[in-house]
Amino acid sequence: MDNVKIAYIGGGSKGWAWKFMADLALEESFSGEVRLYDINFEAAKTNEIIGNRISEQKDAKSKWRYRAVKEIGEALDGADFVIISILPGTLDEMEVDVHLPEKYGIYQAVGDTPGPGGVIRSLRTIPIYIEFAEAIKKYAPSAWVINYTNPMALCVRTLYVTFPKVKAIGCCHEVFKIPKILSLMLKEKEGINADPSEIKQNVLGINHFTWVDKISYKNKDLLPVYGEFAEKYYEEGFEEEKDRWKRDYFASANRVKFDLYRRYKIIAAAGDRHLAEFFPANWYLENPEKVREWKFSLTPVSFRREQAKELYEMSQKLAKGEMEFPIKPSGEVGVQIMKALLGLSDFITNVNYPNVGQMDNVPQDVIVETNVYITRDSIRPIYAGKLPNDVNSWVLRHIMNQEMILEAVLNKDLELAFRAFYNDPIVESKLDFDTARKLFKEMIEGTKRYLPKYFGGEKD
Amino acid sequence: MDNVKIAYIGGGSKGWAWKFMADLALEESFSGEVRLYDINFEAAKTNEIIGNRISEQKDAKSKWRYRAVKEIGEALDGADFVIISILPGTLDEMEVDVHLPEKYGIYQAVGDTPGPGGVIRSLRTIPIYIEFAEAIKKYAPSAWVINYTNPMALCVRTLYVTFPKVKAIGCCHEVFKIPKILSLMLKEKEGINADPSEIKQNVLGINHFTWVDKISYKNKDLLPVYGEFAEKYYEEGFEEEKDRWKRDYFASANRVKFDLYRRYKIIAAAGDRHLAEFFPANWYLENPEKVREWKFSLTPVSFRREQAKELYEMSQKLAKGEMEFPIKPSGEVGVQIMKALLGLSDFITNVNYPNVGQMDNVPQDVIVETNVYITRDSIRPIYAGKLPNDVNSWVLRHIMNQEMILEAVLNKDLELAFRAFYNDPIVESKLDFDTARKLFKEMIEGTKRYLPKYFGGEKD
Amino acid sequence: MDNVKIAYIGGGSKGWAWKFMADLALEESFSGEVRLYDINFEAAKTNEIIGNRISEQKDAKSKWRYRAVKEIGEALDGADFVIISILPGTLDEMEVDVHLPEKYGIYQAVGDTPGPGGVIRSLRTIPIYIEFAEAIKKYAPSAWVINYTNPMALCVRTLYVTFPKVKAIGCCHEVFKIPKILSLMLKEKEGINADPSEIKQNVLGINHFTWVDKISYKNKDLLPVYGEFAEKYYEEGFEEEKDRWKRDYFASANRVKFDLYRRYKIIAAAGDRHLAEFFPANWYLENPEKVREWKFSLTPVSFRREQAKELYEMSQKLAKGEMEFPIKPSGEVGVQIMKALLGLSDFITNVNYPNVGQMDNVPQDVIVETNVYITRDSIRPIYAGKLPNDVNSWVLRHIMNQEMILEAVLNKDLELAFRAFYNDPIVESKLDFDTARKLFKEMIEGTKRYLPKYFGGEKD
Amino acid sequence: MDNVKIAYIGGGSKGWAWKFMADLALEESFSGEVRLYDINFEAAKTNEIIGNRISEQKDAKSKWRYRAVKEIGEALDGADFVIISILPGTLDEMEVDVHLPEKYGIYQAVGDTPGPGGVIRSLRTIPIYIEFAEAIKKYAPSAWVINYTNPMALCVRTLYVTFPKVKAIGCCHEVFKIPKILSLMLKEKEGINADPSEIKQNVLGINHFTWVDKISYKNKDLLPVYGEFAEKYYEEGFEEEKDRWKRDYFASANRVKFDLYRRYKIIAAAGDRHLAEFFPANWYLENPEKVREWKFSLTPVSFRREQAKELYEMSQKLAKGEMEFPIKPSGEVGVQIMKALLGLSDFITNVNYPNVGQMDNVPQDVIVETNVYITRDSIRPIYAGKLPNDVNSWVLRHIMNQEMILEAVLNKDLELAFRAFYNDPIVESKLDFDTARKLFKEMIEGTKRYLPKYFGGEKD
Ligand SMILES: [Mg+2]
Ligand SMILES: [Mg+2]
Ligand SMILES: [Mg+2]
Ligand SMILES: [Mg+2]
Repeated sequence: MDNVKIAYIGGGSKGWAWKFMADLALEESFSGEVRLYDINFEAAKTNEIIGNRISEQKDAKSKWRYRAVKEIGEALDGADFVIISILPGTLDEMEVDVHLPEKYGIYQAVGDTPGPGGVIRSLRTIPIYIEFAEAIKKYAPSAWVINYTNPMALCVRTLYVTFPKVKAIGCCHEVFKIPKILSLMLKEKEGINADPSEIKQNVLGINHFTWVDKISYKNKDLLPVYGEFAEKYYEEGFEEEKDRWKRDYFASANRVKFDLYRRYKIIAAAGDRHLAEFFPANWYLENPEKVREWKFSLTPVSFRREQAKELYEMSQKLAKGEMEFPIKPSGEVGVQIMKALLGLSDFITNVNYPNVGQMDNVPQDVIVETNVYITRDSIRPIYAGKLPNDVNSWVLRHIMNQEMILEAVLNKDLELAFRAFYNDPIVESKLDFDTARKLFKEMIEGTKRYLPKYFGGEKD
Repeated sequence: MDNVKIAYIGGGSKGWAWKFMADLALEESFSGEVRLYDINFEAAKTNEIIGNRISEQKDAKSKWRYRAVKEIGEALDGADFVIISILPGTLDEMEVDVHLPEKYGIYQAVGDTPGPGGVIRSLRTIPIYIEFAEAIKKYAPSAWVINYTNPMALCVRTLYVTFPKVKAIGCCHEVFKIPKILSLMLKEKEGINADPSEIKQNVLGINHFTWVDKISYKNKDLLPVYGEFAEKYYEEGFEEEKDRWKRDYFASANRVKFDLYRRYKIIAAAGDRHLAEFFPANWYLENPEKVREWKFSLTPVSFRREQAKELYEMSQKLAKGEMEFPIKPSGEVGVQIMKALLGLSDFITNVNYPNVGQMDNVPQDVIVETNVYITRDSIRPIYAGKLPNDVNSWVLRHIMNQEMILEAVLNKDLELAFRAFYNDPIVESKLDFDTARKLFKEMIEGTKRYLPKYFGGEKD
Repeated sequence: MDNVKIAYIGGGSKGWAWKFMADLALEESFSGEVRLYDINFEAAKTNEIIGNRISEQKDAKSKWRYRAVKEIGEALDGADFVIISILPGTLDEMEVDVHLPEKYGIYQAVGDTPGPGGVIRSLRTIPIYIEFAEAIKKYAPSAWVINYTNPMALCVRTLYVTFPKVKAIGCCHEVFKIPKILSLMLKEKEGINADPSEIKQNVLGINHFTWVDKISYKNKDLLPVYGEFAEKYYEEGFEEEKDRWKRDYFASANRVKFDLYRRYKIIAAAGDRHLAEFFPANWYLENPEKVREWKFSLTPVSFRREQAKELYEMSQKLAKGEMEFPIKPSGEVGVQIMKALLGLSDFITNVNYPNVGQMDNVPQDVIVETNVYITRDSIRPIYAGKLPNDVNSWVLRHIMNQEMILEAVLNKDLELAFRAFYNDPIVESKLDFDTARKLFKEMIEGTKRYLPKYFGGEKD
Repeated sequence: MDNVKIAYIGGGSKGWAWKFMADLALEESFSGEVRLYDINFEAAKTNEIIGNRISEQKDAKSKWRYRAVKEIGEALDGADFVIISILPGTLDEMEVDVHLPEKYGIYQAVGDTPGPGGVIRSLRTIPIYIEFAEAIKKYAPSAWVINYTNPMALCVRTLYVTFPKVKAIGCCHEVFKIPKILSLMLKEKEGINADPSEIKQNVLGINHFTWVDKISYKNKDLLPVYGEFAEKYYEEGFEEEKDRWKRDYFASANRVKFDLYRRYKIIAAAGDRHLAEFFPANWYLENPEKVREWKFSLTPVSFRREQAKELYEMSQKLAKGEMEFPIKPSGEVGVQIMKALLGLSDFITNVNYPNVGQMDNVPQDVIVETNVYITRDSIRPIYAGKLPNDVNSWVLRHIMNQEMILEAVLNKDLELAFRAFYNDPIVESKLDFDTARKLFKEMIEGTKRYLPKYFGGEKD
């Protein structure tokens, strides 16, 4: 197929966009056009140049035409696929999300899903996604939408609530780490070289708080294997590369996961830095020292600023042709999903999708993360069953909070947003009701440049 | 109707049984026989005498025949109604439930529903209720069963799980307090004398953690009235009788309720001492001083021992005819429910019953407390809707815990019982995982005389 | 309360409106204003005069102000209650609904709910109700809406689908006949004088195809009593007034009901003329002779024309004061429902309401008819359970058809409307697919003056 | 894997068992032992010999050990898989199922699922499956059970109701025909050679009344292709081999399927002879002439008797080594399913399984047929969505009937069985209530040798 049309919202993205371009270039079964839309048009324009360069590289197996556009409608019009990957607000707002709560003794590793940061980020993001959904309804109602933005579940949920016939999923690579870890364990324990893709797992939960309750390699049950390693390496942790967690803000020694296995006897399937944010503060995020004991990191926004600067410089070089972006697989599966949706393969992977029954003991319609079966123009959840009741009580609490946040935005009810904020386990376990309200007000104030007016912000 | 047969399991009960006898005596539309069954046959025998005396008192409007029986089957055989009101274990076990955790800084006001005490009490109680359900199935499959024992929800749930066709409900008087409070408020604020029975409320939640989200007197919405009082009396509390909470272990100044209103904008409908036990320890039960600030009490088991002694002495006097039990309404509605089930009236009240759809966002089949409509041989839940999401996240956590406890008993899985124990908000907020396990072991040891062998206990 | 505002849509109605006025006049606990809106403004104006006259009659216990208005918004603005009782189209369209199918051997007794007439009437009615719902959303979003128009279930469903927060119910008096019949039976069999209001029944099903599976008078189960009469009077029928069915188009000898009892062992709770239309043609409506054997009537539209003429003449006399409308209870419960919604009483009756769980084995949200509990500003379904599976298979078929009809209108899909038409048991059992299509086309043509343009009609 | 244990209940089967043996022999990834259990031990013994011979044939890729056993427990003990394929009763009972109703003008093509024959066969079969379930619970509780017996849905449902933790599925090859037909259509229309396994379809419904609402080959939507052929070949029919339906009782010209497409715009996915039995008699089974017009056959039991005789003779020859059974794929997927359950591959196919949410608008727990995803020790339904409402109304009617039949057996309630019998579309459309009862009695009488005593039969 050679006329596939992709709208890329947030198409001025650095780094992530280039990896996506490389993935497209590596897939020979389809090609077409990518329209890059971004509120920073200059960035989209730069990526147009970079994208077209990548497409012309010798090792590109398919040729794509990249085009920066000024209006979202122009990007969406007639699109087969819509990719959304944006930053809601700027790093200044992220600074407020992540670091302002430290003043009150609250430490966060990421701050983009639960926790005080996650709630505030959601309040900024949902109004934007309401607009996206309306634009998709108008310009590309039958397109498949693949979201990469966090808070993942709320972004996807907002699309469905605003435009119920939208065909949207959310993709996140966190869960892919589990087969990789098991592959390492199999290697160490039994000398078996198992490719992660041959390891079959049942995935269930919500994004960044996802679980694996069944996993196997060929006729071998891998859950007991994981259990042995969780026990053996409980104190020391288990990594592919020794102490990488000390050098890499996104790495960990999996100690949080092992601790969760000890409690719940199933595998928590996201990076430790994400998992830690779903539990009371004293479990894993009590303070920076405790975090170090658990062998993961609190990613500071200052690091993201540096990274952003480097990526900007790289974008200039790429655009000028002073360097070439290496065409190699990113590890994301967006392009494989598109291929399957086009009917050119069939594919099973975990995605974020409304609960139509794939998870028991979780409300209908909320966004859950489980395996799905993808064929031509069709994504069908695979029944994943139910979580253990104790795990589920945490998952349900976060789902309830997400529902409150969404309702707060839909009803323009800031008090309800605060109730969700206070019902967050980190906030509730760390602050009393009145102190939490103070923090909430400060965070709202700090992020007001990107908040809608009905929440006391400055945006229409 | 004059041949109604009632089986009273726990029929040696002191105090509570006599009030029930008085209620029966006050209802003239039906009469018959009460079979008193108790593991303490002597106590049942004493109550046989007391019951027959009450029945012969001049002001008894109906005559009942009381008979102590030695076998549960004899009590149940052909019964129209089964009343169950037992103490699972003795006050020694209750001592363990309530006071042993104090060693770890955990304070409980009642210890019979959630909290460490609630969990351990459940482990003792469920095996007994499995036996009751089997006996009811065998001897009185079409009888209506009215349970008064705590943990209420788990007792009723066990009956249904063991014998799915059982016709059982659970009754608790906690919720009745709300119309009484509103009646006082109406009086104070507007000089209106409203009988509590004229105040209509929508009840929803689980036993001892029940809520009222709509309440009215004639065409007046009472929720705003409650809101005003909750604010005005937030610090001072609000009582019918000033400082009664200082003199009465079962009273409170409703400060916990007012605090919960401030958070959730709906009315928590149980005594403060019960409500406090459903939240993290630092909310209301941090320590005895904090409890006093919240103006309610931690009922010590020593008080219950004294009370038991007094009641024993009273039972001797009543049996010997040295005193007469006053025939006046108890405030319980069991007899009105029986009357309605006989078809002699229709009646609406709140009871504990499996969720068949009366509550949204709560699993099917678990025991919830809502209003029901009672007519001849029929109890039908009235649709109660759903709780606010934040309240619901707490309710769901307790439901998940109850389900785990039940499953732990059914599967004889003590580790699962511990997981429920650790997932209790009081335990989880106060103790780390390893300390909680220590406490759990000590409590199991302390209560082993009444625990089944498969849990390391001494009972078959 | 003396300032209640009622919007009456279809306020030019003859007969029915006057009975409602009489019911209002008989209720002393509240009064206020009724705004009469009708597409026939003259008729509304006449009713304004009649209403005000009734209000001034000596035996009127409450005084109401009647006012004809030209715009629906004026009627609705600030209304506490909205009454809707309209004729969708004219008697000419009803002629097509009821009699055109006779050409193909299809006989209908009413033609307003299922059957070919019911489907076509629905296609005319739903678009009107979409407009009503939009007007209610705009002008009276918190009013309680009481619908009396048929097809009942689809009218109410359309209101909810268009404006999900609408507070609407549908009222129909058919089910009230069952306690009356049982009262007669009790009298004949046991000489007991039971007031129908003392007979308690559990109602479940869909409008005009409603069932009673439990019914009692005091402590007496009435289902076996009904069973005896159904058997004894199977051939002869059972009526209050011998052979009334021969003189009254709306009466029957209950033979259809008795036949349904014989099959399903529960009570069908609507007039035989309605019930007959839900089953295959050869059950009860094979031909006019068979209908007579079953002892009920096919109401001809000619009769309705005569009736309309008489009512018109009566309206003139009433308006001129040449006669006085007798103030006596109509037998409808609309005014009692309003009273309860105002908080001035509590009330249990059967109404049509979305399924929120009151019926098992029936989809959520579709309109079912069961008992509800009505208090101040609140209607709560009472759990009714489930129908026998065979009865349910018929109910589900009609529900599926209703859903298709609604979807056909929402999607402007006439082919889907035909599929619903063909899936109707009368049509399917009597005609082959191609003949049914011919009939459908003719009926569409015959009713096009009141059909929207997207269905080939003449209305915008 | 080389120690897989298979219990084969009905292991004396002729023809079908040999094909299964050949499939096993063709799969090289696993081997082991097959225990053959049959109420006809001689037949099992013969198959032991035949099986071991097949295993020794040169082209057998894996070696299996066959062993006839006298007790079902011996077959089941420690089994990994249980295959069930039995004939409930004998061909004499099948004669009653299929042909006795002809006396009343009712013609059936198969008589094993719905229709009068299907109901009576179910009454014989369910008691047997209750015993199987109890034996599996006792001897092989963690085995995977693959059922091939009809009535498929009720056999599998009985296993789950009797032993809720059973891991059972039902397999039927009917649906596989759809990709084959589409492959032929693609060839004829576009000259494309598509292997049926490359055609992806979404399957939903109940066994023998299954539907395909989405089907594609690579990026091509095949539903419109099917639509064109359904129209073009509506009168003539469409077959791989011209007029094969005249020579083969199991073939058809797909005219019923095309007629159903015309009505419902989706593909009915079973042989026409099965599909016809789910609708009123006058649709396709009015009389033998009509059946011929629709170009399919009524399989007479006389043909099955001949077939049985031939197979018996063949079994003798095979056992004596006078002929060799050809080792070639049967077209069934049982062995592929076992392979996937062992973890040796992953596999997606349609099976019969309890509804855990894979189908909307159908009750939970009833057995539906949809695609499932099979991995090591795990079968997970793939979300299939919902049927069009009119199709669903037929499916629900049959589901309600199945539920009544099951309940009739569980409650030993023959009257309820008759209600299911009368609610069958063929019976209801053809006979009045009283005649249907006569037929029912005669069929019960005719099959009593294999009916339990509580239904008036002769079996314990
Ligand atoms: Mg992510
Ligand atoms: Mg209580
Ligand atoms: Mg009506
Ligand atoms: Mg089959």
